[in-house]
Amino acid sequence: MKLKVYAYRMSQPSRAILIFCKVNGIDFDEIKIDLQKRQQLSPEFKEVNAMGKVPAIVDGKFKLFESHAILIYLACAFPGVADHWYPNDLFKRAKIHSVLDWHHSNLRFGAAKFVLNTKLGTALGIPLNPQAAAEAEKLLSASLEKIESFWLKGNGRLLAG
Amino acid sequence: MKLKVYAYRMSQPSRAILIFCKVNGIDFDEIKIDLQKRQQLSPEFKEVNAMGKVPAIVDGKFKLFESHAILIYLACAFPGVADHWYPNDLFKRAKIHSVLDWHHSNLRFGAAKFVLNTKLGTALGIPLNPQAAAEAEKLLSASLEKIESFWLKGNGRLLAG
Repeated sequence: MKLKVYAYRMSQPSRAILIFCKVNGIDFDEIKIDLQKRQQLSPEFKEVNAMGKVPAIVDGKFKLFESHAILIYLACAFPGVADHWYPNDLFKRAKIHSVLDWHHSNLRFGAAKFVLNTKLGTALGIPLNPQAAAEAEKLLSASLEKIESFWLKGNGRLLAG
Repeated sequence: MKLKVYAYRMSQPSRAILIFCKVNGIDFDEIKIDLQKRQQLSPEFKEVNAMGKVPAIVDGKFKLFESHAILIYLACAFPGVADHWYPNDLFKRAKIHSVLDWHHSNLRFGAAKFVLNTKLGTALGIPLNPQAAAEAEKLLSASLEKIESFWLKGNGRLLAG
């Protein structure tokens, strides 16, 4: 049975999964969950992900949500995925977990809150909040700076790998 | 060389690392980074974690930050840690990654923002924001509800393991 990816292309984490599958030759069916129509809250989708969020996957009988967890699962479960995405080495994996965790509360959080409060909110029927947008922009800028000053440099150099 | 844990006990992620080490008989030195004195921003600590946050660890030459990444590293690197914390099984690991990722943006985010804006902010010299506290309380309550309704039940049942 082919992998099912439940996604909405306006969602960055959804795009991450779709792109990862395409880059690594993973065969999948894309099931569109339209956030503008609030399809993520439908009883059918809640059976896939009780949290009512995209992306989520179903691989045979196995259901999974949270994009980072999905990326790691795909890297491990599909033999065609090149080793550099998620090497077996303990120390390399630890650094990958670290950057993914950092992404959650910094780059992703800043970007998502910024886009939601300057643009995307309108499409999703959520009022834009300029103060939230300003806070988010600060975090987003600081996160982008950390990519330059840390993640792409010296010991922290991971994204270049 | 003994594991070094840089922590501040007012920080929940710091406590997670300290407790995990104690429960699993991991020998370590605790180095207090006093957030009330802003020691996390000192040049010395920035050498350990350029992000200026606790917890962080140094194990021999290996430096790591982000509490979830640290927990997984410790579970893998220290042979005394019981297998159930981070089993080798692909599917079990995927579920562990999923709950840790969920924790980031839900339980942890709600709890941290709530405590910061009702109490902890005063200790750290950050003004309390009642509106932020109210938003955080909503997310915190919803997250606690999801522990009852999802993580401790049926297919999602993970925390019970």
